[in-house]
Amino acid sequence: MKTAVILSGCGVRDGSEIHEAVLAVLSLVQAGHEVSFFAPDKAQSAVINALTGKPSSEPRNVLVESARIARGEIRALSALDVVAYDAVVLPGGFGAAINLCDFGSRGSSCEVDRELACVLRQCRETGKIMGFMCIAPVIAARLFGSEGVHVTVGRPSSASAACERMGAVHESCGYDEACIDRERRIVTVPAYMDAGDIAACYASAQALVRGLETLAGEA
Amino acid sequence: MKTAVILSGCGVRDGSEIHEAVLAVLSLVQAGHEVSFFAPDKAQSAVINALTGKPSSEPRNVLVESARIARGEIRALSALDVVAYDAVVLPGGFGAAINLCDFGSRGSSCEVDRELACVLRQCRETGKIMGFMCIAPVIAARLFGSEGVHVTVGRPSSASAACERMGAVHESCGYDEACIDRERRIVTVPAYMDAGDIAACYASAQALVRGLETLAGEA
Repeated sequence: MKTAVILSGCGVRDGSEIHEAVLAVLSLVQAGHEVSFFAPDKAQSAVINALTGKPSSEPRNVLVESARIARGEIRALSALDVVAYDAVVLPGGFGAAINLCDFGSRGSSCEVDRELACVLRQCRETGKIMGFMCIAPVIAARLFGSEGVHVTVGRPSSASAACERMGAVHESCGYDEACIDRERRIVTVPAYMDAGDIAACYASAQALVRGLETLAGEA
Repeated sequence: MKTAVILSGCGVRDGSEIHEAVLAVLSLVQAGHEVSFFAPDKAQSAVINALTGKPSSEPRNVLVESARIARGEIRALSALDVVAYDAVVLPGGFGAAINLCDFGSRGSSCEVDRELACVLRQCRETGKIMGFMCIAPVIAARLFGSEGVHVTVGRPSSASAACERMGAVHESCGYDEACIDRERRIVTVPAYMDAGDIAACYASAQALVRGLETLAGEA
């Protein structure tokens, strides 16, 4: 399978959660996927000092910072041609909630980044498989809640309640479980929404990839 | 085992190689290690745009950027009390060669960050186990080359030649092999100096941890 991983910066507080992104890619490669990286070429909505948790005034670019995780091998999200891929995967981290959409500030009233919305709607229309980790499933809830998409963001929480307000059906899952919406070909896993350590996060990434493989087998 | 992971920033070109750091921590946690993170609280020697590979003029702090990999749970290297740990592990990435020492600019004439040199010499004196990945073994070569430390930086290269100029004995290793110096209780693995993909990098991290465990059994 050819899988596009869409990043949102570098680091849990203002970008892609690093462990989730790396362990998703590890799990994908171990399952034989050919992985390519993409990220929006735009300014981050915020830059957070990862040590203090406080906002920093310097500007950073989502694509440039995402390139740290991708070891430089990454392209702008605008260059992602859905037709060329079998699946797309979005790791979590607060970057998914502030750079890929504005869930972090607007909750269930959020809007999804226009380029990303275009990519994911095209995936839905053409039956491509989509995977979302951690907080990223709020994006699936926003885009596909009107058709009752099933997602998980782990155990019941304010995030799961927000998914339901957007029309999604929330399934409570532990870190090693995947919520699979067969009709919409969408897999969601809790990752650090439920995982207590990095080994549990890896188990969640593996559950995600097993879910993608399950859907690929049903194509 | 209690293991201190010493980071050098966030990203292969000016910090810790992210995959190596994450997969080392995964392998350590899977083997039952209790992991703590440390990094020098000082300015990076350089900031490199990970997309273009070009230097950037903005300042960044090694500890603050390392905190991205550590999810905020990290302390200054000056707070590392070697007595409280069984082992220290240094992932690679060019940060190890420009922030933890100046091998990147001075090669075999390099000097090691003073705080780090103090920590690692104390490890040597008290028989603590040390692990180095990728390019980080040049630090072991610099500090312990005078006593003929054995290290690997993968296959023979300009880096391995520099290790030998510093007095070290270089052992050529593939990505899934570890060089174990039993006398000095030092394990080195090639990681991305030899690994062709992230799964091979994980195998290298696992080889590192097996090496640490071997030495722990010989205490």
